[in-house]
Amino acid sequence: MVQAQENGIASLYSDLVRRTPPGPRTPAPRPQDCISLAGGLPDPKSLPAREIAAATARALERHGEWALQYGASQGYAGLIEQLRIKLARDNGLDVGPDNVLITAGASQAMDLVCRALINPGDTVLSEEPTWQGAVRVFRAYQANVVGIPLDTEGVRLDILAERLAALKAQGVQPKLIYLIPTFQNPTGFTMPLHRRRQLLDLAKQYHVAVVEDDAYFDLRYAGERIPMLSALDDAGLTIYTGTFSKIMAAGMRIGWLIGPASLIAHLTQIKHDSSNMFLGHVVAEYMASGAFESHLTELVGIYRQRHEAMLDALATEMPEGVEWTVSNGGSFTWVTLPEGCDATTILAEARAHGVDFVPGTICYYDGRGQRNLRLCSSFADEEAIRRGIAILGGIIREYVPHR
Amino acid sequence: MVQAQENGIASLYSDLVRRTPPGPRTPAPRPQDCISLAGGLPDPKSLPAREIAAATARALERHGEWALQYGASQGYAGLIEQLRIKLARDNGLDVGPDNVLITAGASQAMDLVCRALINPGDTVLSEEPTWQGAVRVFRAYQANVVGIPLDTEGVRLDILAERLAALKAQGVQPKLIYLIPTFQNPTGFTMPLHRRRQLLDLAKQYHVAVVEDDAYFDLRYAGERIPMLSALDDAGLTIYTGTFSKIMAAGMRIGWLIGPASLIAHLTQIKHDSSNMFLGHVVAEYMASGAFESHLTELVGIYRQRHEAMLDALATEMPEGVEWTVSNGGSFTWVTLPEGCDATTILAEARAHGVDFVPGTICYYDGRGQRNLRLCSSFADEEAIRRGIAILGGIIREYVPHR
Repeated sequence: MVQAQENGIASLYSDLVRRTPPGPRTPAPRPQDCISLAGGLPDPKSLPAREIAAATARALERHGEWALQYGASQGYAGLIEQLRIKLARDNGLDVGPDNVLITAGASQAMDLVCRALINPGDTVLSEEPTWQGAVRVFRAYQANVVGIPLDTEGVRLDILAERLAALKAQGVQPKLIYLIPTFQNPTGFTMPLHRRRQLLDLAKQYHVAVVEDDAYFDLRYAGERIPMLSALDDAGLTIYTGTFSKIMAAGMRIGWLIGPASLIAHLTQIKHDSSNMFLGHVVAEYMASGAFESHLTELVGIYRQRHEAMLDALATEMPEGVEWTVSNGGSFTWVTLPEGCDATTILAEARAHGVDFVPGTICYYDGRGQRNLRLCSSFADEEAIRRGIAILGGIIREYVPHR
Repeated sequence: MVQAQENGIASLYSDLVRRTPPGPRTPAPRPQDCISLAGGLPDPKSLPAREIAAATARALERHGEWALQYGASQGYAGLIEQLRIKLARDNGLDVGPDNVLITAGASQAMDLVCRALINPGDTVLSEEPTWQGAVRVFRAYQANVVGIPLDTEGVRLDILAERLAALKAQGVQPKLIYLIPTFQNPTGFTMPLHRRRQLLDLAKQYHVAVVEDDAYFDLRYAGERIPMLSALDDAGLTIYTGTFSKIMAAGMRIGWLIGPASLIAHLTQIKHDSSNMFLGHVVAEYMASGAFESHLTELVGIYRQRHEAMLDALATEMPEGVEWTVSNGGSFTWVTLPEGCDATTILAEARAHGVDFVPGTICYYDGRGQRNLRLCSSFADEEAIRRGIAILGGIIREYVPHR
């Protein structure tokens, strides 16, 4: 029998489907003949395929019975243990096993945060521009998002304080502040220590949860590590989401969420899926072998060079009037075109010339960002980055209004 | 720094958290010294660890770059292809690539079905007793569930027709009918062909979606295969969810959802996570090698013997007045105790004697099922099943009221 061609279900759709616009999702990897500066994809050449195959073989030999079986909703205890070792060693974060939830990537962690905190119509505060996944998920949960602009030291606390006070005056209790304090997506900005402390004071004063998205913490190319908000918080208001996608393998979809133990207990109740025991065992074996640390060192070396190539090429190729951010780590450079330029027009032409990037509008909650481009330096290699930026520079030069 | 012990977030929780009762999730595997007849877990001894390790090595050698990278939300195209071959060969279902969504187990498929169709307060119809995961997810989405009882041929169509007519008279448009037509969880009942056709006629008449949960289709120990509802539906009203959890490895969390192409397109929009490319490549390699079919044959042989051992032991050990279902496949036997018995009391005593089962109440939407036990025959081996049922029989004998 053939699956019916008709869709008899369309009239039964939920409001969520009706209000979710169709269109492409997160940029998928593009063909080899295109220079992709778009999606925040890890370097395909340095993905640790051999080490992961070896870790899989070991995990299945040692624990096959349990690695292929249903297991605890919270995640495989052996992976939680390895993650605690990593967080204590690298992130300055000393957490108990009850503070950890293993998730299917940072996306599931964000989805669970929203499930746990947001009723339709609730107010959340968010850096703007920000990660497009956050824009999508807050929209799906019908949150009322108040965007807070950034400067080179991260979210503007004066404006955040103003907004919090105004909400309080209106009798509105916001649920959370969403931030990427280190190597922010898309700007690359990092919040210094003094501002982190002030932010936590504000969160405490207004009793708002802080969601710290820290996907890029380990990808530092210069400067000293700055303590995470989660490591500074003494009020149990911080939820931290992390992921192996940027530092091990995006295709494995393993992330984590760190928070107060009673929150983790609630989250294991409201998530409907068992945790992936197979991946849990594989990643735990991979980490225990030390392969994770040496891979990370290699990755930081590669990404540092690409990041420098990107900044170098922008300085060489961009016409006067174009501005961009300079960061100490992560994957992104945020470009601002002069007044009168439109990134969507440039994107169409760039794609026709074999170069792809993320248009700034999808990093905003309200469609701003028309003059912005997000460029990623982790996927394409140095030579491709230089070529791509040269092509982009040529296109942009045509569109920059002559003075 | 130490994660704060305090939970500052509790006052900010969503209504979902507030109305989700705490308590254990799906039964986790119990220690070796307990005979577990509880969770629907696959046999730990026959999990294909070596073949999966080999498939992983091949997948990473051949496609490492893409197996460890972000990929299409719909799932890895190579796995969709292998699944289409399996569904055409085994399930009599000829579907296009656009009809398939790869999910993180059947749990994510059910969650997505609810996201796509249910607004809070919407009405759904469901077999009762049923899979505890369905009870959980419908509750989370605040569906108004109308339970329909079963007889040995599956859901009672006379009662279903009555309920549909009554809802129509009240002006209520139900969204979906949830069914496990083959080797139903927990009763093991299978709906014969004539009833399947009548059910689809009813669904068409009232324009309700049919959600066909078919986790046990491949585990048939006797009798002929009966066409799936999805293979009989000509109105595009059926959504079919399946899983590799029962027939390959529960720990890998790979399931699927089959439906009209435009529904699949909407689902890829409303799911927030990328599909797991690593698992997609591993399972596709495993299936392409033919290992899947030989493993399934082996599994059906093992499970058939365990199922027979279960039925045999029940006949030997249970006192008069205890009844149970007899099925041709799947994992479950549904036991009904005489009036005046309470399965929860018996469960406490059984656990004290090293035997575990699922109490019937969690298979109902309204707490009924106090006299029921769900016994699983796939996890424990024949000898353990016989020993477990002997212990259970002894306990139950003490509680059955003397005539």
